[in-house]
Amino acid sequence: MRPSGRTSNQLRPIQITRQFTQHAEGSVLVEIGDTRVLCTASVEDSVPRFLKGKNQGWLTAEYGMLPRATHTRNNREAARGKQSGRTQEIQRLIGRSLRAAVDLELLGEHTITLDCDVLQADGGTRTASITGACVALVDALNHMLRKKMVKTNPLKHMVAAISVGVYQGTPVLDLDYAEDSSAETDMNIVMDENKGIIELQGTAEGATFSQQELGEMMALAQQGISELIEAQKTALG
Amino acid sequence: MRPSGRTSNQLRPIQITRQFTQHAEGSVLVEIGDTRVLCTASVEDSVPRFLKGKNQGWLTAEYGMLPRATHTRNNREAARGKQSGRTQEIQRLIGRSLRAAVDLELLGEHTITLDCDVLQADGGTRTASITGACVALVDALNHMLRKKMVKTNPLKHMVAAISVGVYQGTPVLDLDYAEDSSAETDMNIVMDENKGIIELQGTAEGATFSQQELGEMMALAQQGISELIEAQKTALG
Amino acid sequence: MRPSGRTSNQLRPIQITRQFTQHAEGSVLVEIGDTRVLCTASVEDSVPRFLKGKNQGWLTAEYGMLPRATHTRNNREAARGKQSGRTQEIQRLIGRSLRAAVDLELLGEHTITLDCDVLQADGGTRTASITGACVALVDALNHMLRKKMVKTNPLKHMVAAISVGVYQGTPVLDLDYAEDSSAETDMNIVMDENKGIIELQGTAEGATFSQQELGEMMALAQQGISELIEAQKTALG
Amino acid sequence: MRPSGRTSNQLRPIQITRQFTQHAEGSVLVEIGDTRVLCTASVEDSVPRFLKGKNQGWLTAEYGMLPRATHTRNNREAARGKQSGRTQEIQRLIGRSLRAAVDLELLGEHTITLDCDVLQADGGTRTASITGACVALVDALNHMLRKKMVKTNPLKHMVAAISVGVYQGTPVLDLDYAEDSSAETDMNIVMDENKGIIELQGTAEGATFSQQELGEMMALAQQGISELIEAQKTALG
Amino acid sequence: MRPSGRTSNQLRPIQITRQFTQHAEGSVLVEIGDTRVLCTASVEDSVPRFLKGKNQGWLTAEYGMLPRATHTRNNREAARGKQSGRTQEIQRLIGRSLRAAVDLELLGEHTITLDCDVLQADGGTRTASITGACVALVDALNHMLRKKMVKTNPLKHMVAAISVGVYQGTPVLDLDYAEDSSAETDMNIVMDENKGIIELQGTAEGATFSQQELGEMMALAQQGISELIEAQKTALG
Amino acid sequence: MRPSGRTSNQLRPIQITRQFTQHAEGSVLVEIGDTRVLCTASVEDSVPRFLKGKNQGWLTAEYGMLPRATHTRNNREAARGKQSGRTQEIQRLIGRSLRAAVDLELLGEHTITLDCDVLQADGGTRTASITGACVALVDALNHMLRKKMVKTNPLKHMVAAISVGVYQGTPVLDLDYAEDSSAETDMNIVMDENKGIIELQGTAEGATFSQQELGEMMALAQQGISELIEAQKTALG
Repeated sequence: MRPSGRTSNQLRPIQITRQFTQHAEGSVLVEIGDTRVLCTASVEDSVPRFLKGKNQGWLTAEYGMLPRATHTRNNREAARGKQSGRTQEIQRLIGRSLRAAVDLELLGEHTITLDCDVLQADGGTRTASITGACVALVDALNHMLRKKMVKTNPLKHMVAAISVGVYQGTPVLDLDYAEDSSAETDMNIVMDENKGIIELQGTAEGATFSQQELGEMMALAQQGISELIEAQKTALG
Repeated sequence: MRPSGRTSNQLRPIQITRQFTQHAEGSVLVEIGDTRVLCTASVEDSVPRFLKGKNQGWLTAEYGMLPRATHTRNNREAARGKQSGRTQEIQRLIGRSLRAAVDLELLGEHTITLDCDVLQADGGTRTASITGACVALVDALNHMLRKKMVKTNPLKHMVAAISVGVYQGTPVLDLDYAEDSSAETDMNIVMDENKGIIELQGTAEGATFSQQELGEMMALAQQGISELIEAQKTALG
Repeated sequence: MRPSGRTSNQLRPIQITRQFTQHAEGSVLVEIGDTRVLCTASVEDSVPRFLKGKNQGWLTAEYGMLPRATHTRNNREAARGKQSGRTQEIQRLIGRSLRAAVDLELLGEHTITLDCDVLQADGGTRTASITGACVALVDALNHMLRKKMVKTNPLKHMVAAISVGVYQGTPVLDLDYAEDSSAETDMNIVMDENKGIIELQGTAEGATFSQQELGEMMALAQQGISELIEAQKTALG
Repeated sequence: MRPSGRTSNQLRPIQITRQFTQHAEGSVLVEIGDTRVLCTASVEDSVPRFLKGKNQGWLTAEYGMLPRATHTRNNREAARGKQSGRTQEIQRLIGRSLRAAVDLELLGEHTITLDCDVLQADGGTRTASITGACVALVDALNHMLRKKMVKTNPLKHMVAAISVGVYQGTPVLDLDYAEDSSAETDMNIVMDENKGIIELQGTAEGATFSQQELGEMMALAQQGISELIEAQKTALG
Repeated sequence: MRPSGRTSNQLRPIQITRQFTQHAEGSVLVEIGDTRVLCTASVEDSVPRFLKGKNQGWLTAEYGMLPRATHTRNNREAARGKQSGRTQEIQRLIGRSLRAAVDLELLGEHTITLDCDVLQADGGTRTASITGACVALVDALNHMLRKKMVKTNPLKHMVAAISVGVYQGTPVLDLDYAEDSSAETDMNIVMDENKGIIELQGTAEGATFSQQELGEMMALAQQGISELIEAQKTALG
Repeated sequence: MRPSGRTSNQLRPIQITRQFTQHAEGSVLVEIGDTRVLCTASVEDSVPRFLKGKNQGWLTAEYGMLPRATHTRNNREAARGKQSGRTQEIQRLIGRSLRAAVDLELLGEHTITLDCDVLQADGGTRTASITGACVALVDALNHMLRKKMVKTNPLKHMVAAISVGVYQGTPVLDLDYAEDSSAETDMNIVMDENKGIIELQGTAEGATFSQQELGEMMALAQQGISELIEAQKTALG
């Protein structure tokens, strides 16, 4: 029995709100249950130094958590003077995942920065960030098309992410904080809309997990990601 | 004529939403026109080292701006590894202003941290932060009363803040970004509900200002702050 | 009764020594009572990146305090690896105040850096810095005229600064450390020689202050700044 | 055809040298082909603050690469003043993986720090680090047993790691640098000696991968890790 | 012929002003020619953690240069966020040299911090710092005796320092900036009043130097240090 | 009697292994007794900004110690976020010493970086670094000749370094850790193959030393450095 009463393959309610703020080329508030992340996509007319003159664009991501997004207050990373290893790990994951969604050559010499800032955390902030950032990215790419900054839409396919895990011996989909903090295994999976796997990060906590459990978790993830991509497409109209 | 069409003594629409997020002891989204700031108040059972054993509490504030709260993207301070001088100046102002609202001895050996994070900026983010943080503070103090962490409410009086300025030769109330970026003078004023002045920070940009203009701006500020304190009290029910 | 025995509108003795060190284009030791600040003005043949090619110059300021300028030793900011919020706030104030004294277009593509280093502190270091730095600035501008780095003197008017406050219920001029540490209100005011207000920063400590007290403090400040500008002009011969 | 001429399920030659340096409680040079990592295990009589008084120990890891371990010189992280996101990601992985190998309660209030420093890199440095660090850990635990710092050996089981990937359409075991830099998929797998999965991190580069490819890579990894654990046990005598 | 017209064994004029600032337990302005360094000695009632409970004191030093102490402006180390290697090297040298002057056990559990801040630089700032800091140290130790913080004066002997070098083929004493920047060899020597050598740091620039030149430089240094110790004693009355 | 049983003028066994790692243009493991340092020389096709367009090259050095090179573990400098004063002092010494070995104009617009990383420490790591780095430098210069990056070999002469000291009243050569930690005087000397002195850094610990002791130490150093240069030449074949 899951703390939330959900069945093992049940996602939390999903809410995707576009144009949540007004300045960014894409701005999406994604809510997966009580987890709320503001994802903005910003377009700049330049590329990092290592790509200058290579006729391609770049996509990168940054992640942050407001100090009181969590049960107890976390120190502000800007005040401490550095981003934690966890933050860097997450923003590298978001960046790699979304780079898989775009054709960087079609993007031309532009950089898209995806900022994922967690307003409220209840487990699954990194996967919610990826799912929400993909919608913000689509809005930004459409903006670029309208402004004739690109000729062809560089979007290759939608990308979404979800966590799965083994909770009290049972593989379950979409762990919330109560499950996450006591799960035996926690795995984050990123896929595209064609069920292609982009990223897979699984960690055993306490006990290890078997290849069979891996297979069961992959099946749950595939179903969950289909539903998330459905929700993304509905939001995008 | 102001860009927004407002009269010289007209505030932008004010919206104060309590319990905007669920974990903090006080959580307020304050909207002054298009400026939106999330203010949370977090209570901790300890005090900074310099106050240990002195039978009093502490109140401090931190301020941040999401990278794309603004027209063009700002670098993330956590990624740069330090807070700008502007950020530090603002969070020191917020902290001093709200410390004026509480009796630190009645607070006992607790620390309240006010986090003001700008989701969307359109001028006046520091004054909106103070106005919103005061409401979050009241909610946190009431939480402490309910939990018997304090015996008497340490609140001395409500505090609010507003900007005034000289725009195209005329003193005006509550500058938005369009005005702020071209005003001759910009002044931020913090007052309590008894019209007592807590902080005053005025800066001439280009031209200087006279004692008479100072008087006119003070009058506008006093009226604006009365309206803001009204709005705070309405929000608090 | 003031600790120093001064009347409420009496400045401390002022001493302005030019050419205190030999390398800088302007080098001034300013002494206001026991507060001693070394202010140097350095001229460079370039401008910050954001002004390149805009046919104008720049003026900026940095502030520091020697570790034992104060009653007890403060940690060295260079050793701690960052400037405090207080330091940044002060150097931003000095920079804005002195930028109001020069016509940046007449300055051409040069940068003037004003370094204000406190050798000994007894209250009012930031206002003494502004008053002294203005003299160093004049010397540097005259150096530029002699060297034909500018055609017309970019100086618009002299600038000076003073603190005022409410001490034991009475508005007083030019707080020393003994007063500053127990004043109810502390306000720093920057004006030009035509009584135009450039900056105003007032803070209530404990009690708030009224608009009437504000008016009384402004009158004291105006008188004090007239005397300081007199002293600057005498020093400049 | 692999650049090295190896078959798809063939590991590079493995060399494990114990007591490579003399001060550490465990010191192992692990060589997997041309990748060489020095792994030391250091025992300290204390635990981090968050574990004080909880009757358990801690194990943590740090990772570094000598500046010229690679084809072209990398900047030294100590000189740059921070560890890269990649470094932090890797040392977090090593720490989690090896914590899975020990019973932290049996360890008592001691901390074991595993330092993995890459002397020469040719792909697979993070998995070689885990494989080598496990041997250093065993030596350190035996040292603790001999010195009566622990009563029972806290080792739960051996742990080893290997990379697998899809190279030119074919799943292969143990990617070297030439393969790694052009593989379609790169996956790092950590297992214990009972084939339990501890960590799984797979990344698609360019193309995505399918659940079937995942299964084939898992099978390769399981075989490779068996061979590595064999080599660890041989080295440990 | 030396640029200054001095003979090869001639020191620049020495000026030692005690009580240059009022707060420090020792405060000395030392002037060696145009080099001017403010040296303060601060006494604290505690010792660094590594000496707690060992019944001995500590002495440490910090060094800084005002940004415009030099011909062209140097960046402020506090603003850059770190001390240069040169600064750290110098302050370590000053600390070691002056620790040789005191009996740390007689000092008791106190720390003396020597701050050497260069107001104006013309070569030889590190040796002037040592010479001046020793006088500030004596004043601080006498203060401790008067305040009964120590029973016996912990001073072992006076310490002074001077540079020597090979300039245009000739060994010379006390290099000024013009000589220092083109000397073939530059050596800093610290001695006590009994001609015992405390520190020796010689560097060849361009050409190497011979053992015979070393001997000649040592003789010059010994004579110069005798004169400096004379000047210290005169200043101390 | 020395702890190691060596005579006062006896070096520890020397081992110089070239091509210890495969990527660097020069890669040398130098072993002086139990001290082991990996020295790599890396060639880059550019020069630092301050040398751009001056038709000369640059040589610089960096030094590091693996955390467990020592008896007890030292914190990793990359994790702490800065290099210690000791590290900076040492790498500046190595850089200056080896710059004395090359003609920077013959080097052309290239930079050689010498990385000296201590794998195991038993005293004398800085002098071993210099001795080993010189061999790596020669290999790198020969590589440049073969690749026609330089026309003439920029090597001026071999450089080596050794420590000497006064141990229990007797001048001795090549202090190991046991001696170093209790010696009265510790001196590091860098010479070229013609007995020219390049660097000299002597420090008295506790007692001072005399000019006569200095002479005796110089004689020991000269002999030791001759042997080291012999060993370098043998290694280079």
